Amino acid sequence: MQPNLFPVQKNYQQKTLGILGGGQLGRMFIQSAINYNIDIHILDPDFNAPCKSICQEFTQGSLTDYDTVYNFGKNCDVITIEIENVNTDALDALAKEGKEVFPQPHIIKLIQDKRTQKEFYQNKGIPTAEFILTDNKNAVIANKNFLPAVNKLGKEGYDGRGVQVLRSEADLDKAFEAPGLLEKLIDFDKEIAVIVSKNQHGEVKAFPAVECAFHPTANLVEFLFAPAEISEDIENKAKEVALQVIQELDMVGILAVEMFVTKTGEILVNEIAPRPHNSGHHTIEANITSQFEQHLRAVMGMPLGDTSLRSPAAMVNLLGEDGFTGEAYVEGLDEAMSEKGVYVHLYGKKLTKPFRKMGHVTILDDNPEKLKERAHKIKSLIKIKA
Amino acid sequence: MQPNLFPVQKNYQQKTLGILGGGQLGRMFIQSAINYNIDIHILDPDFNAPCKSICQEFTQGSLTDYDTVYNFGKNCDVITIEIENVNTDALDALAKEGKEVFPQPHIIKLIQDKRTQKEFYQNKGIPTAEFILTDNKNAVIANKNFLPAVNKLGKEGYDGRGVQVLRSEADLDKAFEAPGLLEKLIDFDKEIAVIVSKNQHGEVKAFPAVECAFHPTANLVEFLFAPAEISEDIENKAKEVALQVIQELDMVGILAVEMFVTKTGEILVNEIAPRPHNSGHHTIEANITSQFEQHLRAVMGMPLGDTSLRSPAAMVNLLGEDGFTGEAYVEGLDEAMSEKGVYVHLYGKKLTKPFRKMGHVTILDDNPEKLKERAHKIKSLIKIKA
Repeated sequence: MQPNLFPVQKNYQQKTLGILGGGQLGRMFIQSAINYNIDIHILDPDFNAPCKSICQEFTQGSLTDYDTVYNFGKNCDVITIEIENVNTDALDALAKEGKEVFPQPHIIKLIQDKRTQKEFYQNKGIPTAEFILTDNKNAVIANKNFLPAVNKLGKEGYDGRGVQVLRSEADLDKAFEAPGLLEKLIDFDKEIAVIVSKNQHGEVKAFPAVECAFHPTANLVEFLFAPAEISEDIENKAKEVALQVIQELDMVGILAVEMFVTKTGEILVNEIAPRPHNSGHHTIEANITSQFEQHLRAVMGMPLGDTSLRSPAAMVNLLGEDGFTGEAYVEGLDEAMSEKGVYVHLYGKKLTKPFRKMGHVTILDDNPEKLKERAHKIKSLIKIKA
Repeated sequence: MQPNLFPVQKNYQQKTLGILGGGQLGRMFIQSAINYNIDIHILDPDFNAPCKSICQEFTQGSLTDYDTVYNFGKNCDVITIEIENVNTDALDALAKEGKEVFPQPHIIKLIQDKRTQKEFYQNKGIPTAEFILTDNKNAVIANKNFLPAVNKLGKEGYDGRGVQVLRSEADLDKAFEAPGLLEKLIDFDKEIAVIVSKNQHGEVKAFPAVECAFHPTANLVEFLFAPAEISEDIENKAKEVALQVIQELDMVGILAVEMFVTKTGEILVNEIAPRPHNSGHHTIEANITSQFEQHLRAVMGMPLGDTSLRSPAAMVNLLGEDGFTGEAYVEGLDEAMSEKGVYVHLYGKKLTKPFRKMGHVTILDDNPEKLKERAHKIKSLIKIKA
């Protein structure tokens, strides 16, 4: 044994890990972290956050308030996020004081604004859809020749909010008043995602590409299939692009890269998320290493885990049923659980509302052909009502 | 959908589950239970029990004191155990008051005493090693013609304690003074275990057999290999016997059945444990359903999960290194984690002492031949010191 080969080894066992955000991503992250005896502190504005009763210390407070984030971070050794909308100035100050903040604050800041995100792709030669920055509705209208396009809010778009498709001038009314961008509407063949990670030692790894199917109206991932039905050539191109993004950012942690595969086989980066992501939930059961363990390994300075797929998988998001608001009740669980290779993940949210992410189900099947059919069956079986 | 097919479905989502014992078994159980939004209450005498900070309610108290167990159970809907040495009279009272107590108190009581356990096998025609009940040392000495034999304490034997091999008269001094039994020393070919489960609806399932390799001196499982290297015939016989045990007990929950395979291919039941067991830790990564999820499904009235093996696996117990007592430090983690398919589980125990179960590592490898070698390598890499 040569312990000196792994200078951080002796340390991370005593480090406290603070997470900004205590939702389902933090919750699944904690399920992995329990295996390593790492003390987890959580900051979340919701008194009933999904992580509340499974972490070592829970603080209720704003993620965007400087003092709240700063004081929370003071008691941690390593600080990470499960949501981008956090106070990066406080994180900057903590990093300057020697705290390990991953992803690095300036990267979170860059990603918080879809405008700077797009400019970053442009500057680094990362393939992405053509775009124009727009400061308000009039700027969008002034560029009506750019339609059909997607108008995206620069900041605080989340889970489908802050995105507006403008197919023709008739849609211009829907344009946002706030600073955002106008992006060419891509006539894509598929939407895929590749999750990549990088640790402090510079080690990088990419998960296999997955295929995302979005909810027609809610603009949320509804189904996910792994592996993606794409050629090896496209798969490699997608991994290359995703790795290029994390290398150019020089980011430590896990990064989800959502991409379009155009009808001509081009890869275009759509959006990125510097944290565990909905497009990686299946990795808990379907891959050698889950995205949550990989994120933990990356930010704690552990060696990264093997990312290969153990079995074809489908992931179904359990969204709050439209028309139901109140104390959640899950319908159809037992029938779903009677099937082989069905993994239920409920997020511990007491209240449901239309399209709220309440949980997900992963389905494993050696026969990829069966996955679509099984995913739709699970979707029709399990309903989140009130 | 026919909800009436699953009468309990509407209920378990609101049920509170109490666990007697908050050690590593409870800890891994909670990691599974988090997926179902089930509130877990833990009772454990240790203020720093491994489950303490990841359950919804933790009570520090004795597991053998009537009032403590009774008052704890009063606030739960379902009550289960992760250790057998609990006050079964209190559980009886709780069951009479309508609490769902699984495994049923009289079964825990029967298993608590190795003497009644052996008599049960005898009465039900379950194959087991020949034995004589002994009340004290003199009774053992009086039966010296029965040697070579194993002298087992009736009660409170645990993790290798309470077991004494008496090969010849020279060993008679080591005989126990307390009530126990003298069991013919079996010249076995292998030690295997089969975990079976039964839910409230009468559904039963058996996990594939695993092979256990014990620590030479500590008398604890050191390595475990799945699948066991046994013929299909022996495998089927072992499953039959294990299912016979849970059916004869009519027990709800999960039951680990440890068995000897004799040189003549006979199956003899050695000991049983009515809870998740060390011989099932690999199921977390290696099987479609883990033993912890299976136990949860069984006691909560959910349908049982598929038990098949997804990949050959080895499990290595991480025991406190001999000669080290104090604040635990894990050596060699990073080197181990650099390997593909290595899963570390640390149990959150601050203090280590010689042979204390501090964690385990599961190794997955499509090539079963490689598993023994890899298991020994991991064992030599990871050391729990102070």
